[in-house]
Amino acid sequence: MSQKIIIVGAGLTGSLLAIYLARRGFQVDIYERRPDMRKVAISAGKSINLALSTRGIHALEQVGLAEKILQDAIPMKGRLIHPISGNTSFQPYSIQANEYINSISRRTLNVNLMDEAEKFPSVKFFFNHRCTGMNLENGAAYFIDESTGNTLTASGDTVIGTDGSASAIRMEMLKSGFFNFSQTYENYGYKELTIPASSNGGFRIEKNALHIWPRGSYMMIALPNAEGDFTCTLFMPHHQSERNLSQLKTEQDVVRFFQEVMPDACQHMPTLVEDFFNNPTGNLLTVKCFPWHVKGKVLLMGDAAHAIVPFFGQGMNCCFEDCYYFDQLMDDFGDDWAQIFEAFGNLRKENTDAIADLAVENFVEMRDLVAQKDFILKKQAEAILEEQYAGAFISKYAMVTFHRLPYATALKRGRTQDKVLMEICGKISTIEDFNPAAAMEKIRMEWEKLGQ
Amino acid sequence: MSQKIIIVGAGLTGSLLAIYLARRGFQVDIYERRPDMRKVAISAGKSINLALSTRGIHALEQVGLAEKILQDAIPMKGRLIHPISGNTSFQPYSIQANEYINSISRRTLNVNLMDEAEKFPSVKFFFNHRCTGMNLENGAAYFIDESTGNTLTASGDTVIGTDGSASAIRMEMLKSGFFNFSQTYENYGYKELTIPASSNGGFRIEKNALHIWPRGSYMMIALPNAEGDFTCTLFMPHHQSERNLSQLKTEQDVVRFFQEVMPDACQHMPTLVEDFFNNPTGNLLTVKCFPWHVKGKVLLMGDAAHAIVPFFGQGMNCCFEDCYYFDQLMDDFGDDWAQIFEAFGNLRKENTDAIADLAVENFVEMRDLVAQKDFILKKQAEAILEEQYAGAFISKYAMVTFHRLPYATALKRGRTQDKVLMEICGKISTIEDFNPAAAMEKIRMEWEKLGQ
Repeated sequence: MSQKIIIVGAGLTGSLLAIYLARRGFQVDIYERRPDMRKVAISAGKSINLALSTRGIHALEQVGLAEKILQDAIPMKGRLIHPISGNTSFQPYSIQANEYINSISRRTLNVNLMDEAEKFPSVKFFFNHRCTGMNLENGAAYFIDESTGNTLTASGDTVIGTDGSASAIRMEMLKSGFFNFSQTYENYGYKELTIPASSNGGFRIEKNALHIWPRGSYMMIALPNAEGDFTCTLFMPHHQSERNLSQLKTEQDVVRFFQEVMPDACQHMPTLVEDFFNNPTGNLLTVKCFPWHVKGKVLLMGDAAHAIVPFFGQGMNCCFEDCYYFDQLMDDFGDDWAQIFEAFGNLRKENTDAIADLAVENFVEMRDLVAQKDFILKKQAEAILEEQYAGAFISKYAMVTFHRLPYATALKRGRTQDKVLMEICGKISTIEDFNPAAAMEKIRMEWEKLGQ
Repeated sequence: MSQKIIIVGAGLTGSLLAIYLARRGFQVDIYERRPDMRKVAISAGKSINLALSTRGIHALEQVGLAEKILQDAIPMKGRLIHPISGNTSFQPYSIQANEYINSISRRTLNVNLMDEAEKFPSVKFFFNHRCTGMNLENGAAYFIDESTGNTLTASGDTVIGTDGSASAIRMEMLKSGFFNFSQTYENYGYKELTIPASSNGGFRIEKNALHIWPRGSYMMIALPNAEGDFTCTLFMPHHQSERNLSQLKTEQDVVRFFQEVMPDACQHMPTLVEDFFNNPTGNLLTVKCFPWHVKGKVLLMGDAAHAIVPFFGQGMNCCFEDCYYFDQLMDDFGDDWAQIFEAFGNLRKENTDAIADLAVENFVEMRDLVAQKDFILKKQAEAILEEQYAGAFISKYAMVTFHRLPYATALKRGRTQDKVLMEICGKISTIEDFNPAAAMEKIRMEWEKLGQ
């Protein structure tokens, strides 16, 4: 008899993990609070499109799914910056043609992963099952079937909580003591809005870009969908800022605001007012905790262990990387869950902390810096260095997005590079004044200080 | 009809707050999970004696209780350091005769406060009532009477959660979203032990001191009790250290360990082995959260809002200071709870964060630095500066302990002073080489940089 793993949460992490486990011959029972999204339309309006990149693609490749998943994705080659004036400019993500990110809808991706998981006879999904807690001693997990009101207890050889940033499994660990935990909200809310496809089904604005309307303390972004529409997200302080969400109370407030600060987007948003008032306001949350497991009985993975803000486009990529490393550890430790769980936390914690911090920092970059002269020069300088010192110099963005270096390394090296380059670019007025050799020497010196 | 306040938790904060509120004419219903400690012996073994100092005394003075409470306390004039060699040395807390801290048992203090609170006919205690949650919208608090098993709902004009570091009220706020929260455990456990009174009822070791056995990564402390005994507490890593609690498994382990590293204490501890194995292992936890209130419906106060580690002897003093400032805000805002709660958080948060950080830092000082040459010189240098620059120079310890400066100010100024003095003392070999005027000039320069 093969071992049975209880997975709590059939989101992106849980569904991919089920595939990894099933390939190793484990039985997987996966319990999900929501109904089956393949049968029922689940309320959207709080999703933010996803940007699939190297780490995520690599984890999908291991289970033979990358090619299939990427068929539904739209390449985004760089940031398209929209100033108020309307004179857009394009900031490429890389000088390499094959280095871009891929816009994909959460729903499409999740459905694909569920379908793939269900192809294994050993994987069973239980929808509408809300986890109400678990016994950390014996590993029993408790659920209520919300379609019938019945309660049930699931027992397997171990439990893995992939139940997201508001994890019920984690709440159980929080109550049990000796569990380090923090949840930190930004003073920002977000609203999902839309730019629909044009009447002939085409894209109303540039298709292969991540669009940003950077406005200092707030911003809007737009990501393309395969159907020709764009998912837009407005990020804005709740309170305490010159411009904030609490000021947008009436239809007139909303229309005036968008006409004033994003006139070029506004003209493509016929359902702006309805979207704004019908869609819920999302919040931006970072969750850190440790240890992620209780003996061999339960492990947190994905957002349940490390929820991050979306500004580096790494939430899903990081979660998929979790699955990949977890699978690697099964090579080393078989089904010794206590060992695997301990090693998994020790391997991943430093890196998930790093991407959490990088994601918060990137918010400042997106909403403010991308519009500033020094930053634009720095991006140009990075492109020059990446070309002249190919293999040696990799920008922070590229280390995170197009490489699989540990996030903690990307953070340390990347911050150092950014500091050196921002200093240099603060002193020059055009990119012609940039001295790549001198910059590279300074960067190498700083790297050495890091001991890397 | 006067307003009714529901207090959850009749510990030190809840009991003193009840007195403050009753004096203003409010009705107070105070619900406590434990039985009435005045009637039932409540299991001890996890208390740590308290050190009452200026902030706490000041808050008691406002309600006319300081003198009475201090009758049960024992002055501790300084730290008595016990090296392995047995050659003890005394480090006074101050050069002022009236600057000392007061050892008092948690139980005695709590009983006194309950007795005083109950003298007000408008204060009612409900013991054995465990809070199971509350409705943050309407302010109803839910309890189970553990003596009968009955559940009940308490409703008043507002709720104040003084239910300690594992607050049930705070858990409700944590579940509700948009609540910043962190709990951080040190990798340390603690064991309460005892040095009993001598056969004639006297103190076996120096009465008027806080005793420390500093051993680098771990330490024991002992505080005097009025009955002639000392409450000792061993603080030691759980794991991952040359010496840790997990190594002390058998009676022989414990006896050998104490004989080896604290021989002078060991000889006064006839019940060492029983105490060690009968008493539970406590954990050291810092809790930070914000906001502390939900509209005017509920407020967290005391450890529920800001639990800290015990190494600055400020946990209770900080909680009593909470009560004092809360009372001051009622002068300004009457019974406008939403305003009072908002102002209270804004006033206190920075300071409770500061004492939390200071308390963690002081652990290193107590277990390690007090035994080191530079640190001993620094203490001597501080005494010289406090004398020669009376009124201008106040040591960090004194700012926190003998003054009522905001904790955040004490932290900023204190860290600056410590840095300057430790640098100077690292370069001299005896206190005769210390140049007070030069040191003071450097300190003043650093203060100026702080903008204070």
